Formats: sequence, structure tokens, C-alpha cells
Amino acid sequence: MKPVSFHRVQVTDNFWKPRMETNSKTTLKIQYKHLKETGRIDSLEPEYKKGDREAHHIFWDSDIAKWIESGSYSLHYFPDEELEEQIDDVIDKYARLQLEDGYLNSWYIKVEPEKRWTNLRDNHELYCAGHLMEAAVAYYQVTGKKRFLDIMCRYADHIDSVFGPEEGKKRGYPGHEEIELALVKLYQVTNNERYLNLAKFFIDERGAQPHYYDQEALERGENPERRRPNYEYSQSHLPVREQNVVVGHAVRAMYLYSGMVDVGIETNDPTLLEACSTLWDNLTQKRMYITGGIGASNLNEGFTFDYDFPEETSYCETCASVGLIFWGHRMLQYYGDNKYGDVVERALFNGAISGISLSGDRFFYANPLASLGHRHRSEWFGCACCPPNISRLIASVGGYIYSEADDSAWVHQFIQSSTELNVASQKVHIEQRTNYPWSDKITFFINPERPAKFTLYLRVPSWTRSPFMYINGEMTDVYGLLDKGYVKIERTWSPGDSVELILPMPVERIWATPFARLTNGRIALQRGPIVYCLEEVDNPYTPLSRLSLPRSSKLTATFEEDLLGGVMTIKGLADVMETDDWDANEPYRLRHPIVKPVTIKAIPYYAWDNREPGHMIVWLRETF
Amino acid sequence: MKPVSFHRVQVTDNFWKPRMETNSKTTLKIQYKHLKETGRIDSLEPEYKKGDREAHHIFWDSDIAKWIESGSYSLHYFPDEELEEQIDDVIDKYARLQLEDGYLNSWYIKVEPEKRWTNLRDNHELYCAGHLMEAAVAYYQVTGKKRFLDIMCRYADHIDSVFGPEEGKKRGYPGHEEIELALVKLYQVTNNERYLNLAKFFIDERGAQPHYYDQEALERGENPERRRPNYEYSQSHLPVREQNVVVGHAVRAMYLYSGMVDVGIETNDPTLLEACSTLWDNLTQKRMYITGGIGASNLNEGFTFDYDFPEETSYCETCASVGLIFWGHRMLQYYGDNKYGDVVERALFNGAISGISLSGDRFFYANPLASLGHRHRSEWFGCACCPPNISRLIASVGGYIYSEADDSAWVHQFIQSSTELNVASQKVHIEQRTNYPWSDKITFFINPERPAKFTLYLRVPSWTRSPFMYINGEMTDVYGLLDKGYVKIERTWSPGDSVELILPMPVERIWATPFARLTNGRIALQRGPIVYCLEEVDNPYTPLSRLSLPRSSKLTATFEEDLLGGVMTIKGLADVMETDDWDANEPYRLRHPIVKPVTIKAIPYYAWDNREPGHMIVWLRETF
Repeated sequence: MKPVSFHRVQVTDNFWKPRMETNSKTTLKIQYKHLKETGRIDSLEPEYKKGDREAHHIFWDSDIAKWIESGSYSLHYFPDEELEEQIDDVIDKYARLQLEDGYLNSWYIKVEPEKRWTNLRDNHELYCAGHLMEAAVAYYQVTGKKRFLDIMCRYADHIDSVFGPEEGKKRGYPGHEEIELALVKLYQVTNNERYLNLAKFFIDERGAQPHYYDQEALERGENPERRRPNYEYSQSHLPVREQNVVVGHAVRAMYLYSGMVDVGIETNDPTLLEACSTLWDNLTQKRMYITGGIGASNLNEGFTFDYDFPEETSYCETCASVGLIFWGHRMLQYYGDNKYGDVVERALFNGAISGISLSGDRFFYANPLASLGHRHRSEWFGCACCPPNISRLIASVGGYIYSEADDSAWVHQFIQSSTELNVASQKVHIEQRTNYPWSDKITFFINPERPAKFTLYLRVPSWTRSPFMYINGEMTDVYGLLDKGYVKIERTWSPGDSVELILPMPVERIWATPFARLTNGRIALQRGPIVYCLEEVDNPYTPLSRLSLPRSSKLTATFEEDLLGGVMTIKGLADVMETDDWDANEPYRLRHPIVKPVTIKAIPYYAWDNREPGHMIVWLRETF
Repeated sequence: MKPVSFHRVQVTDNFWKPRMETNSKTTLKIQYKHLKETGRIDSLEPEYKKGDREAHHIFWDSDIAKWIESGSYSLHYFPDEELEEQIDDVIDKYARLQLEDGYLNSWYIKVEPEKRWTNLRDNHELYCAGHLMEAAVAYYQVTGKKRFLDIMCRYADHIDSVFGPEEGKKRGYPGHEEIELALVKLYQVTNNERYLNLAKFFIDERGAQPHYYDQEALERGENPERRRPNYEYSQSHLPVREQNVVVGHAVRAMYLYSGMVDVGIETNDPTLLEACSTLWDNLTQKRMYITGGIGASNLNEGFTFDYDFPEETSYCETCASVGLIFWGHRMLQYYGDNKYGDVVERALFNGAISGISLSGDRFFYANPLASLGHRHRSEWFGCACCPPNISRLIASVGGYIYSEADDSAWVHQFIQSSTELNVASQKVHIEQRTNYPWSDKITFFINPERPAKFTLYLRVPSWTRSPFMYINGEMTDVYGLLDKGYVKIERTWSPGDSVELILPMPVERIWATPFARLTNGRIALQRGPIVYCLEEVDNPYTPLSRLSLPRSSKLTATFEEDLLGGVMTIKGLADVMETDDWDANEPYRLRHPIVKPVTIKAIPYYAWDNREPGHMIVWLRETF
């Protein structure tokens, strides 16, 4: 199957459409403002020179690129002349900046022109190129304008002339992966196989011995033996096909694995997909937070060890959850298994969108699972990768819903929308109506041009216990039709056919594996795909670990239209340890604490820190 | 009251005497070996010069000094010609090293002679002087040899000529406190008031504005405005009398507060004691672990915020608990309140002695409250403050037991021993017999030369619920006689009188205050003064947080003579979360975990990591 691109999908969803609008009206505007004010865009001007801005970063190009990419997606749904002019203007600047030989990196052109390609390990040169390529592809797809695409093809040609297995070329690869998946996108729109081959080269070469980063360090006059960098950080410690544990910097890992799937599929190389399958299981079974957040530690912005889930200090970078969605969606196309779609959903509805405020103008870089009240979203960052990353995800969310194959149509995500698929040698119009994630009913209207035999696959999320379904109003077994977590409906579809899928969403208590030493014995609340948290503003019982939830306590969900843009909240009776009962002089005592019942209220995790600042927790102690 | 010095106390205790022997036979020997092998002692030789040892540290003198101090205490109980010769030899070296003007610091003499007294903030110059003074006083007390004392008086005189409030002197004070309490010891053996005045100056000047460390930084050519150090780290952010929260580096804080009490008592300055009283309450009520460990963070080796008790990462430096004992014992002399003696006991029997292996040759720098199996005691450290610090505490533990005043005798700690006190104008021999901390009975034989009226104060620890007492075999009320946590027995004592104090020691569950967000809702086990932990070797259920203890579970204590040098262990039925019951693919699930009953066994916290390496925890979840 192949994914159906965002630009073929109309999104009319109650949950996502307003977010896409906020992205268009607010997020993209403030991104541009920050790109201007911080000098990122000005640094492309001919008169800009080294030292004009103290904070000039080696990866500024990538911030601009992701804004263009997000803006492109957004233009498809929300035409915006001002935005299109801004992008065209920046493209003009890049056109003027590009060197004769095609080279195009604002840092190296302006600041260290003599040091091009001398430090792939640390310096984000190929990473920036990758993001600019993705932006160019998106802008071309939406506007049909080829200028930026041509610029980036020239740059890709230049890179291809520098790197590769051929005699005289450098056998290097990016310290921060990204260009691999970007080159595949460039290949997909240009059909230029050199781009695919270059992506494949970067992936195949990664981790080969002697290590390229040692060699380039020697060439820089450094002694890599003296203080050997940790190559797990950039997933270059081993050839990628030998990697079976997710390690290092989480965003780097997600972009690499995404590129591995792309190259694996495009070159028919199952070994890359097998490695990814092993890595996926390690990540999602042992190293992923319940929110779809990944990367437990801020020290490496990445992975630590199995079942390590600190809460207050969990890193869970917004970009890493966005990257997880990229990877999962790609895995899904190859394997057609709900275990990928479920994780994409988990990250989409929880740990990724928690990265942006409901107002669209403040961002989390790290997404902790507990807070003592001092963690808040920021307007911007010196390293501003996260804001445009969550922005491009929201703008292109329509691209995560459907896939098509010769004789099958696939629905992965439940987002009200419509599209026209190419299935069974004809156009099949599919409309999805739902109030997901708050309501459990999703209705599909299937309209082929004429009756046609094909299979409709609908994902059945693993969080639901008793799904049921009506086909043209007739109740139909779901469990008997399940195939790798998708209900598989093979029939001759006629215009006017409908399927109603019901995924009952009681409030669920979720337990963590006993191996999760920090979380075991506690529970998280979930309803449908939404993971909940408790905030101090609703639950004035800090520290919130004073609360415990009796196993017998009844929990009820209520939709609160005026709260946080409209959310389902969960209420129930919990126990809170009394503090009045404690002598303030006693840090420890021989008598157990007294508890009293209180009503607690939980809100979706993604919506936290949108009201008064305060404590927050996800995992609650349990009383039973 | 005044404390009765170690050299007036005979220790015959089952718990402490073997530790003092191990200290004499093993710890002091290996300290000397490391001091030699690492070059610390050789660096005192005339031929030693800058660069001979790569690791030469600015605080090497203090490591040597604490070894001499510990060795001196030990010599009192265990004569050892070899040790005494080693010490005399090192004293010879210091004698040769000392400069004409009395200056004596091996780093500055050998390595940076031009930089004396230019960086009090960072460079431990006065700190080393203080430790050498303490060593000289101890060696003089035990051996009667004056040579080292004279050397250190000359150095103290030199320091006094450099620092002080007078015109032309530096108004500086140590970045690492220590010399204040040392100067008071020097004053106490020499009666030279200049030493007391200098100690008082260092304390009074601390935190004054303009800040001395800013001034000396300017003189070094640095700009303190550009990157202002955090003066809380060295408790120099405020004048000491205005400090009411324990902050910064924990060892520094303990030494400062100890010096404040000493100067406060010797100069009759209640303002210093009042400040200490406030700081004590803040520390022991809000910032002290149940083990008597202090300093939650490794980042500043010190304090964070109230009720912050991380377990795996708790710093709880051995030196800090030793310093807490120093401070608490001093507070006790002034206030006569069991809240001080209780904390001294808590640290003595738990967080301090956990710093040394039962074999006496391995040391913890940090004492975590939970471990995943990779935290083990080391043979030595580059910064080797902890090994000699715990060594000198053990060697001098006899000095923490008794105090005397004109008309009262005090027993603070229960350690089998005897002493002769000067009370009621005569010699009163007191013998204490006990098998503490394993047995609850402590018998005191009071033998004045002739019948005499005085008050005997015995500490009643706050951990006991139902103490009782026999005076000459007659049961006597304890509660009615309690005065600030001491049972106060006023009577005419005759030769042959006895008091039997019984402090019942059931196994206790201890709860942490609800404000302790990381520990609340869990329990620790304690029996008498001993805090317990669970080790993997006895409880093969990692991660140990899988265990929970039902509130109704009966816990029994058994003395195991052959285990860990003889310890009381605690056994009982707990619940363990099954792991067989979990699909290894499931990090989270909708069904609660299954538990099964298992017998757990707890050992004293201080004795952990003396067998097979493995996981360890103190705080257990509770089921009820």
C-alpha cells in the first residue's frame, strides 16, 4: 500500500481542523516573526556577515526550512497570499545565496567557508540540506512552483558529487540524520535515481569501520583516540542492519529509521525493514512513555535503558514524538499492522501535540510526565527545532489517515475527512464522519464510481475491548475479520455503502509493566486514545502524589465544551493524604497518614499547562 | 554541660568496638597505603616539585590531616607503634615544609607559591589548615607530643596575621568552612584567645557586603559581574545570623554550623545558636533523609529544596552525615534536647556508617537510598575526603556518649562503655552495659565516690513508643520525668546504684510526610535506631519496586549472628507483582498486575553492598 498524501485529503475534523486553522493563523505567523527577529532570515542576505548575530547557529537553515514546509502544507488548506510571498521571498534569498557549484548552507557560506564538509559528526550540514529538500518538495507539491525544487536539486547534485562510494568521493554521512528521508522525497517527485542511491549510500555507510568520524577528526587535527565520542549518540556505533536497540539522540534515531524504511521500500531491501522491525519493538515495548513520548534523558536528549521512565525529568522531546509518527506511518505502509498505527495515534493525540499550546504560540521542547509547577511552554528556543516540527505535523495530519493499494483501501487514523482513492482500477470516494477522539462512532461512506470488489481495512486500536460494526446498517462481527489489528472487509462495494465502526471508550485504568521500576504499581487514566493527567488547578492537593485512586472508584467522563477548547474530562472519588494531620516538624512518623475522599478531575495530557501554572501528574498511586 | 572527650571513655561495645578495631587494623593501614601510593605524602618532601604527580590536588593536606586525626584517636584505644612512627614521620615532613613565616600548605608551597591567599572562594587553603589543626590537637591529646601542635600554632599565628578586621589585614574567610571549628579546638587546648577571635572573625565576616569573593576575583583580574558564582553554595550569600534555610554544599554547611555553635558557646553569643537552631529545624524537618543522609543532589553535592528526597540519585555524602553528627552533638551540649541526640543517633547508625564496608577497606562517597545494582563502595577516591572522615568518626565515637555539668550527668548515646565524670564536686564512675542497637535494655551502674545529689539525664529516643525504667530494680515512671526528651532523674546517688532503661524495639513501619512527593504513601522499616533496606540477594524480585507490603503483614526480627557481622534482620510476607503474567510485548495494559505473596527479608541499611552486588531499596510500597 501507499500512503495518501495530505494534498489529496480534505480534513473537516472537529479536533484537527481548528488546530490546522490555529497553525495557519497563529503558529506560522509567529514562526515567521521569530525567524525574522532572531536574524535567521536576515542571515541569508548578501550583506550579512560573520558575527552580525551572536547566536547564529549552525542549524538555522533547518528552522527556516521547516517553516516553509509547514507553510506549504497549510497553504493547501488555507490559501494565504502573505505567507506565500514570505516564502517566495525566502526562496529568492536562497537562490541568491546558492554558490556556483550548488552548495547551499548559510552558516558555512557566511561564517566558515573554508570548513565545508569537515565535521559531519557535529555540524548539521547534511541535516540542514535535508530539511531544505523536504521544504522544497512540499512547496512544489502544493504550489506547483518549481524554483525551490530546482535549487535543491542543484544542491543535491552537488552533495552527490561530494559523497558516495566512488573513488575520490567522501564516504561520510550525517551526524544528525534527516537527509536520507529527504532524498527519497526528492527522488519521488523527480524520479532521479541518483537521489535514492545517495540516500541508500548514507544509510549503508553508517557505522562502517574504519569510522568516518574518526577519519574526519584526524583530518581536523584531532585525536579521536584521546576522547572518543559516543557513537551511539548518532546511531553510528554499528552498521544500521546490525542495530537492534534504540540508542542515542531520539530525534536522530527517528529520522534515521524513517529513512531506512523509505530506502528499504524503494529499493526492495527487506533487511532494512527487518532491522526497523526489531528496533520498533524495542522502542515501543521497552522505551516509550504512555504518551508516545520517547527519550528519557536530557543528557543525550535520548534513550537510556529499558523500562526507564522518570516522570519529572522525562525528556520526551516534541520533535522525537513527531519523528516517531513519521517512522510509524512508514512502517505501517509496509507491514499493515495496527501496532504501528496505534503508536502513531498515541503520539499524535498525546505526546506530540502536548508540544504546542492551544493558542498555537507557545511550545514545549521537553514534555515531562509530571511537573512541580515550573515547567511551561516557551515562545521560542535558541535551538528552535520543535515549534516548526509540530507545526508541519499538524498542517499535514491529513496525510496520516489513508492508504491505497491495487485492491484495497486502508483507514489508519480516525479524523473526519474525505478523499478519493485509486483502488480496483477506479476512483473510490471515501468519507469518514466522526467526533473522534471524544466519540466512539466512526462512519465511513464508500462511493466507488461503480460496484467494485476490493478490501477495506479499518484499524481497530488495541485500547478498545469490544469493538463492533455495522455494514449498511447490519451488525457484523469484528473479531472474526481481524487481520493484524485491522478489520478486513472484503466485498463488492457499491455507491452508497456505509460502515459504522464503534470503538467503545470507557474510562480505562492503565497499568505499567512490573519491569518499569518507577511507574509500576501505579495507574494512568485513558479514554479512547487520550491519556489523561491531573493538574493542580483542578486538584488543589499538592504534591499530587498525595492522591491515590481506589481500585473500586467509579470514573465518569463528561464533555466540557468550554474547557480547553472542548475536552472530555474524567472525574471520580480519590483518596488524599491529609496534611493537617501531620505535625509540620515531623518529616517521618510511626503512624500512617490519614486519607479523606476527594473528587479528582483529569484532563487530556496534551492540554496541560494551558491554564494557571501548577503541579501536574499522569501516574497515580492506587489504593485497593 | 560539656561533652566528655573520647579519651576519657572506655568503649566495650559489641557494635562499635569491632568497628574501632577494624578501623585500627585495616582502615588506617589502607589509608596510609593510598596516601603513599597516590603521592600525597611524598608531595611533602623537599625534592617534590610541581608536576611530579598529575593528580596533585589542592586539598591533599586535608586527606593526610584526617588520617592523622583518626590515627590519633585510634592510638588511644589501640597502641600501634608503626602507626605512631608513620604519623611522626609525616609531622617531620610538615616541620621541614613549613615556611619561615609559619605558612604551611603543600600545594601552594610547591605548585603555586605566588598565589597564596588569592582564591579563598575555590581553593581550600584555609580548609586544609583547619584539618591540620584538628589533627594536631588530636595527636597532642592522645600522645602528649607537642611538636605538631606547635607547628600548627605557628601556622595559626601566621593566618591570624593575614586575616582579621584590623587595617591592612584581609577580610576574607574560607570557601570551604572547617577552620572555624578547628581554631576553637586549638583555643581550647592552648587557651590562646587569638584563635577564638579569629574563628569568630571568619564567622562574623561571612556573607558581608561588599562580598570578599567578588573583591578577590577582581584582584585576580576576573569580572565577578560577568558570571557571578552562586554564593549559596558556600553559605556566603548572607551573613550567617540571617541564614534560616540550609543551602549549598552540605559538608561545607555542616562544618560552618558546627563552628558557629563552638564560637557561640565560647563567646556567649546566643545569636549564633539561635541561627543554628533555625537551620537545624529546617534541615532535620525538611531536608534530611530517613537515614540521616543529607544533600539530595550531586550537582552541588548539597541541598535542593524542602521535602526533595530522590532515592536512586540521592547524594547523601558520607562526609555530610559525619558533619551532621559533629553539629548535632554540639547543639546537644547547649540545648539538652533529644531532637539533637536522636538525629546524631540516626546518622551514626545509618547514613554515616553506610559509608564504609564491614571490611573497613571500601567506601561510599554518596549513599543512595535505592540502587539498580551498579553502585558500589570504592577503595579510594581522587577527592578522598570521605574515607578518613568516617574513620575519624568511628575512632572517636566514645566522645559522643556522655556530657557532664556541675550537678548533672548526661547520657546521649547507648554504647557499652564506662567513664568517670566530674559531677557534684567529685568523681562519678558510670558504666553503661547494653547490646544496643539490637537489644532494648541499657543498664547504668552509677558509682559516685560518696553519696551525692545530682541529676542523671538519659536520652529517650523519639522512635520508642513505650519506654520504661527500673531504678535499683524498682519500676519508675519515664513519661512523668521527661524533660526535652531526656528522662531526668534527680536524686542522691550512692555507690552501687543502677538504672535499667528499656526502649522497646518492635519492628516499626515509618511513613514519610505527605509533602515528600517522591516518598509519600510508602513505608520504610525501622527497628530501634536502625533503618532497614532490601537487597536483591535476599529478595530476588527486581525491580524491587515490584514489592509491596500489606499493612496487615506481621514483621518479625531475628538476630542472625553469622550475617554481616551479626545483624537483626526483619522478615515478613509481602506481595510481589508477577512478571510471568505479563506479555513481554506489553509495556502498558488494561488489566491490573497479579500479585503473589512472598517472604521478604530486610537488613540494616548501613550493611548494604557487603555481599553480592544487586538492587537495593529502602522505601516500599504499601498495600492495604
